[in-house]
Amino acid sequence: MSRSLKEIAEAIGAKVQGDSSVQIAAVASIASATARDLSFVEDEKNLSSALKSDAGAVIAGDFAAASNAKPLIISNSPKLAFARAAAFLQKSNGDRITGVHASAVVHPTARLAANTTIEEQVVVAENAEIGEGTRVGASSVIARGVKIGRDCRLYPRVTIYAGTTLGDRVIVHSGAVLGSDGFGYVRDRKSGRYEKFPQIGRLVVADDVEIGANATIDRGALDETRIGRGTKIDNLVHIGHNCRIGENVVIAAQTGLSGSVTIDNDVVLGGQVGIGEHAHIEEGVLLGGQGGVLPNKVLRGKGVAFWGTPARPLREYLKQLATLAGLSKEK
Amino acid sequence: MSRSLKEIAEAIGAKVQGDSSVQIAAVASIASATARDLSFVEDEKNLSSALKSDAGAVIAGDFAAASNAKPLIISNSPKLAFARAAAFLQKSNGDRITGVHASAVVHPTARLAANTTIEEQVVVAENAEIGEGTRVGASSVIARGVKIGRDCRLYPRVTIYAGTTLGDRVIVHSGAVLGSDGFGYVRDRKSGRYEKFPQIGRLVVADDVEIGANATIDRGALDETRIGRGTKIDNLVHIGHNCRIGENVVIAAQTGLSGSVTIDNDVVLGGQVGIGEHAHIEEGVLLGGQGGVLPNKVLRGKGVAFWGTPARPLREYLKQLATLAGLSKEK
Amino acid sequence: MSRSLKEIAEAIGAKVQGDSSVQIAAVASIASATARDLSFVEDEKNLSSALKSDAGAVIAGDFAAASNAKPLIISNSPKLAFARAAAFLQKSNGDRITGVHASAVVHPTARLAANTTIEEQVVVAENAEIGEGTRVGASSVIARGVKIGRDCRLYPRVTIYAGTTLGDRVIVHSGAVLGSDGFGYVRDRKSGRYEKFPQIGRLVVADDVEIGANATIDRGALDETRIGRGTKIDNLVHIGHNCRIGENVVIAAQTGLSGSVTIDNDVVLGGQVGIGEHAHIEEGVLLGGQGGVLPNKVLRGKGVAFWGTPARPLREYLKQLATLAGLSKEK
Repeated sequence: MSRSLKEIAEAIGAKVQGDSSVQIAAVASIASATARDLSFVEDEKNLSSALKSDAGAVIAGDFAAASNAKPLIISNSPKLAFARAAAFLQKSNGDRITGVHASAVVHPTARLAANTTIEEQVVVAENAEIGEGTRVGASSVIARGVKIGRDCRLYPRVTIYAGTTLGDRVIVHSGAVLGSDGFGYVRDRKSGRYEKFPQIGRLVVADDVEIGANATIDRGALDETRIGRGTKIDNLVHIGHNCRIGENVVIAAQTGLSGSVTIDNDVVLGGQVGIGEHAHIEEGVLLGGQGGVLPNKVLRGKGVAFWGTPARPLREYLKQLATLAGLSKEK
Repeated sequence: MSRSLKEIAEAIGAKVQGDSSVQIAAVASIASATARDLSFVEDEKNLSSALKSDAGAVIAGDFAAASNAKPLIISNSPKLAFARAAAFLQKSNGDRITGVHASAVVHPTARLAANTTIEEQVVVAENAEIGEGTRVGASSVIARGVKIGRDCRLYPRVTIYAGTTLGDRVIVHSGAVLGSDGFGYVRDRKSGRYEKFPQIGRLVVADDVEIGANATIDRGALDETRIGRGTKIDNLVHIGHNCRIGENVVIAAQTGLSGSVTIDNDVVLGGQVGIGEHAHIEEGVLLGGQGGVLPNKVLRGKGVAFWGTPARPLREYLKQLATLAGLSKEK
Repeated sequence: MSRSLKEIAEAIGAKVQGDSSVQIAAVASIASATARDLSFVEDEKNLSSALKSDAGAVIAGDFAAASNAKPLIISNSPKLAFARAAAFLQKSNGDRITGVHASAVVHPTARLAANTTIEEQVVVAENAEIGEGTRVGASSVIARGVKIGRDCRLYPRVTIYAGTTLGDRVIVHSGAVLGSDGFGYVRDRKSGRYEKFPQIGRLVVADDVEIGANATIDRGALDETRIGRGTKIDNLVHIGHNCRIGENVVIAAQTGLSGSVTIDNDVVLGGQVGIGEHAHIEEGVLLGGQGGVLPNKVLRGKGVAFWGTPARPLREYLKQLATLAGLSKEK
């Protein structure tokens, strides 16, 4: 199924330059685009190759205002406009099945809203609630009392432990485990054995969160673990019990948060970062890949970049690296 | 279902101070407790807020001996007593289904003991054995010849490869993979290709072990990988083939052990630690988060903390950090 | 089922010394071998213990030419010969079920070649293609349009996203997620929200690749992620969108590659390595465990070892460590 360039431009709030009737079926990169594809270009230096490509139309900035070699959508943010066009086209392409597949096991007390899709081999347990337009991928397991909002997309083989709550438009990739027990024990000094501290709190995930493949997010021990609105979590990330993650936080792959870590809004964590218990990363901090933050430590500063273990301001870290390299050469 | 404070105190071997008939349904933190909840306080400075809370009863130390504002359980180890009370209350609350769910596929040669629960969509293959009181979570796959002891709890979507053995009271969280092939190849120098070295040994997990979500533990190449009694393994941990892990070892999230690593009893490994092949971490060593141990290296010393890569005694590591920071400022 | 030593030697192209009629059922280590097992020894110093062991036969190098205590297979590469003997014996032992299990859900448009095995609870979606002799493990999910070659082995609970292509003889361990969405967003500067950049490319995995348990490999954003022939990927590895991995690359556990990383042939990456976006690791480079490579960085040199973060040639890194330790002691 295709859409006219006019329909796409209207959907994303941008304007067409040239033939607005051209039919577009999908988005593609400049290199791979065909006549049915829409592509994009972010700066003037790549414009001419975009115009020479096979793409049926191109999204570009004002720098393309004088071009008439191809139908264009003009936008101040070509990449953002391209992302929205892709979402619009994908929505119109629909999905493969709807309704509850016969091989799924849905408990009679579970409440499925209208237009919910439950794919093959899924398990939905007692008193779970699944919102309108949400799709639960094949072989996922939704435990009792879980609440999932509207228009969520769970890919195959997701596990959600009992009592977890997801907001609207949450995307969860395959293998992710949400609401598992935190890592908490009390040692019996006499026997030397570790006994399990209760892990009976909840996990609450707000709207518009995306969670990557095989990521794990633990429930609170006694209270809650919370993931704020719009936060994006990459593959194989670990978030411990009682963490509080703010809004629009970005956490790259394989990063790990110990228990009771606080991450404020708009923080960006690189890949393989490790953060100790009760540390606090304040609003807008950037922490580079493989950085380490000690327990109870506070990192502060909007737009300030930290790096290394223990994490230091980037300038300081680079200076130390250079100092060490210099001294080593002198020796 | 609730229990009297008296019943709880008897179950955990502690004594009640005040009204022992108060009915308790669950445990909770001081902040969230209601009249049906039992909470705890570890030190005197938090006692007054605990006594003012809504909790129906509180577990406290001897420092609370003079208090009569609330029914109390007095214990030398309030946190441990609280953990045990939580376990006692959870046990009495029971679980959602029992028996073998109709959607599970259990091979006729598998042997299920009494009171075993096999949840929805589970696969139990040839000659697997599952002990009394054990629960296998939805969509788990138990391969042929696996032996699982008594009173184990496997959460949904666990995979156990053929021939793996689990002791009693083992807890395995969702997505964990037990007994997978180790990472071993032999390179053919002529072709440059890697050929698979046989990974046909076993994985043996002792009693009272807990394994976190999406953790992976490989079987031995030719012999065994072993996890000792009471050891606790967090989410996304990787343990390579032929590792020997002792008793009451604690391994935090995302730590990785290469092949043939030996970890003695009572070792504590922080998160994101990496340990090279054939390294040996001796009894009681503490290794801080993100620490790295070179292949064949030995770390020694009960209660000695190591940190950094390559791992050094903490004092030495901190002194080196300070030296570098000082030199860098001088430059 | 067993094979004579003669049959085994012929299958792997090596010669027997001594009684070639001895019957062998399996391979084993020297320590655990019984009379029905074949073992191996790589150097002369372990020969006498191998000859004294219970093994029915031993694979050894020319250094054993004078021995007649046991039936031997003589090979220039005893470990390689042992690996091939193990593969030969395993092949003849066969697998547990064949065909499509009744509990699997295979879409009528999916094409299964001859001798394909689809285990319990598997889902195979629209237009998927599975090649001859391939086995799909229990509870795996094969999305629409996936193409899997011949003689592949997917262990239980593998997920393959739509459109992914696997070559022949590919092995995928449990919990691996292939072809998931990459981690790409465009920030709307007005609202501060991240919007999803399209992740609609593909993942292409070549022949003879092995992928470890709970590893995640993302599809391309608009184009392709590619894994080259013979490459071996360990447990919990993350490979981001648009990465290009060459042939015979070895990637140890928990290593992570950001988006658009290029790894050339014959590279070896240790465990917990992190590589930034658009970095390029050239042919034959060795990168030690926990090493970190900055975005856009190029590492070069066949057989050159790098270590640390940022990754430096091993010599340089060790010298810097020694310098720091020395200065710290002086202070």
